[in-house]
Amino acid sequence: MSALPSLDEDMEQGLVEAGAHDGQATPAVRRARAWLSRAAEPGSVAFWRFVADTGPVEAVRRLRSGRASDAVRALAGVRAEQDASLEDLLRAERCGARLLVPEDDEWPASLLHCLTVATSEEPDDPRHQSKRAIAPVPPLGLWVRGPARLDEVADRSVAVVGARASTAYGEHVAAELGHQLGERGWTVVSGGAFGIDAAAHRGALAADAPTVAVLACGVDRVYPAAHGALFHRIAEAGLLVSEWPPGAAPLKHRFLVRNRIIAALTRGTVVVEAAARSGAQATARRAQKLGRQVMVVPGPVTSAMSVGCHELLRDAELGVVLVADATHVVEAVGRLGEDLADPPERPTIPRDGLSDVAVRVLDACPVRTGVSPERLARVAGCHVLDVLRVLPVLELADLVERTEAGWRLAPPPEPATATGRG
Amino acid sequence: MSALPSLDEDMEQGLVEAGAHDGQATPAVRRARAWLSRAAEPGSVAFWRFVADTGPVEAVRRLRSGRASDAVRALAGVRAEQDASLEDLLRAERCGARLLVPEDDEWPASLLHCLTVATSEEPDDPRHQSKRAIAPVPPLGLWVRGPARLDEVADRSVAVVGARASTAYGEHVAAELGHQLGERGWTVVSGGAFGIDAAAHRGALAADAPTVAVLACGVDRVYPAAHGALFHRIAEAGLLVSEWPPGAAPLKHRFLVRNRIIAALTRGTVVVEAAARSGAQATARRAQKLGRQVMVVPGPVTSAMSVGCHELLRDAELGVVLVADATHVVEAVGRLGEDLADPPERPTIPRDGLSDVAVRVLDACPVRTGVSPERLARVAGCHVLDVLRVLPVLELADLVERTEAGWRLAPPPEPATATGRG
Repeated sequence: MSALPSLDEDMEQGLVEAGAHDGQATPAVRRARAWLSRAAEPGSVAFWRFVADTGPVEAVRRLRSGRASDAVRALAGVRAEQDASLEDLLRAERCGARLLVPEDDEWPASLLHCLTVATSEEPDDPRHQSKRAIAPVPPLGLWVRGPARLDEVADRSVAVVGARASTAYGEHVAAELGHQLGERGWTVVSGGAFGIDAAAHRGALAADAPTVAVLACGVDRVYPAAHGALFHRIAEAGLLVSEWPPGAAPLKHRFLVRNRIIAALTRGTVVVEAAARSGAQATARRAQKLGRQVMVVPGPVTSAMSVGCHELLRDAELGVVLVADATHVVEAVGRLGEDLADPPERPTIPRDGLSDVAVRVLDACPVRTGVSPERLARVAGCHVLDVLRVLPVLELADLVERTEAGWRLAPPPEPATATGRG
Repeated sequence: MSALPSLDEDMEQGLVEAGAHDGQATPAVRRARAWLSRAAEPGSVAFWRFVADTGPVEAVRRLRSGRASDAVRALAGVRAEQDASLEDLLRAERCGARLLVPEDDEWPASLLHCLTVATSEEPDDPRHQSKRAIAPVPPLGLWVRGPARLDEVADRSVAVVGARASTAYGEHVAAELGHQLGERGWTVVSGGAFGIDAAAHRGALAADAPTVAVLACGVDRVYPAAHGALFHRIAEAGLLVSEWPPGAAPLKHRFLVRNRIIAALTRGTVVVEAAARSGAQATARRAQKLGRQVMVVPGPVTSAMSVGCHELLRDAELGVVLVADATHVVEAVGRLGEDLADPPERPTIPRDGLSDVAVRVLDACPVRTGVSPERLARVAGCHVLDVLRVLPVLELADLVERTEAGWRLAPPPEPATATGRG
């Protein structure tokens, strides 16, 4: 391995290249992010901001040379002195995996953007920032294993999650949902755990559809151990995804940190079974905070494994939707005109059926020069996350358009009489 | 029977008394309403208005002498020439029943008032009025059989209804709900039918609680025939109630007409099981229109008998609440401070926790001279039904009070320091 360039040499070289290839996925950038993914636990607002502000290559240089702030250096600790970046990249390659970085085309940038926005609202003082378990921080990179392109499979995806101690009913419903969603061209994303997660993955695989398991350990590890065959099938047809480098252990705290990736990568989350006061409420609130639709499958009121689902459905503030099958799911998360089987029958002007927030955002859009989502939020008097959620809807309805300067009203359609052949 | 006064003699006498006993439950008024309950099918807006405008005694005289309008006479038809009023009253007496009339103290006037209000919004032209099956018309009288006082048992009551072709799951939940509600001092009202209705009644009876079956036939008849023992037990501990006179047959159309009484007599309706596109949606809409809370018990998404329940829960416009047990039901319909087990912990000023409509109605209340609910609705800019729904809440929170002239703000409570012993 001595013939290979050292990390620090690579970073020096990367810095030289950076001027010419700003924001591109050069080998130095990939190696830098491989190193960063092991240097600090994912989920830290301060660490992510440090990398975002300096760029990955310079971030590595500063950490290696002790020029980062005390707070940032403390987040890496002794790991700053170690380097397994090349081994990790090779180990990934050996198991059919690769490190996806934000600089890649394949990076699911538009989906993960909600995390960037949410993180931008975190306070400056690290002591007041959200704890790692719940902080809405974007990933520094994603180790992915499997033949699928992450941006493509995540584009039309839904998370199906739930209890590990599931009932036969819950597993049946999760498998059925996974299968039906797979048949309709939707990717099922879940956590690869026992119970509901596994049933949902299996249902999707049975429909020959790609499915994505977002893990809390390295993509070369099998946890739970009994899921060897399942992970093997997922890695053949879909993707195993992890923020942690190959070999990383499934430490308990990592599962909560991992959950934000499941929420962000999908258009919505379906909770199939959940016990009373389980993490379901937290999962729902987080998904909702990221602008994602939360859906819940009800069950018998006599089943302890449905109590958490019913708690969610009784919480009017969460805005969750009851779903009984894949049709309901697609109805809740499908894009206008693309996925919905039954378009509204009556002739509608496009504004009809828009939510209150969507109308306010639409009214905030200027006619001529485009503006940023942040400015739209100020004018519309709503949250910037709301703006980001409704803009795609407005765009698909041909009501707004994106210009280099930002968003503005789309020009009105030409009247039908003027486009006739006469 | 020749020694008894004829109907027409009784009515002449009743008219003389009416001046002295305006709006009182004289024997003539009771006989008049007994006759009217057989003379025309309940549920007609035009017929109810005719009786309300002329009074029951004069209504009978006009129908008997052919002086009613053609439209009203057509609603009675040949029944105007017949008279079984005394026989009906005697037949009721023989089975332990009696005819309750709006002039009685026991009449559940405040509960049924919602029907009067809803009917007042029906158009004048009978051709444009709601059809009998759905018209929100108050009853002209109620035949009741059993030891309980209707106004008392209906005061804290909840309807528990659902499919006749219920599953073991649904029956279990209905019985459990009936039992739990009974134990908490709530009256279960239902329709006495197979399936969910019967399970709910039985659950209440098992808790030694009164239960009310509102029938679509005479209170001396048993339909379905297998419910002889059940009806007997209900008539011993609660009430059988019907708009139709003794002996009346359970004609199919009468069940829908009957349903409005179940909705109006209760603070809310719980739907336990319902098939797809069953009458559950209509039941929910009607109850909601009358200002009543609609509650729904979910079930397995794999059960056809829960599909209608899930349809209701998916309909955001209906504002239904998911309930899994009696605690949830009481939470949804309980009066402020009276039924709720856990009062809010933080110190609240009474306005806290009021709905938007309640705040607007409160703000519309004058300080000095009381005004009508209709006037409050105009000032508050809401529906008069909303006003009628929130006034009891505001009254129980000591925020408003009823005077002879109508509703006004309650005087502020004396400061605690002024009421001390010193």
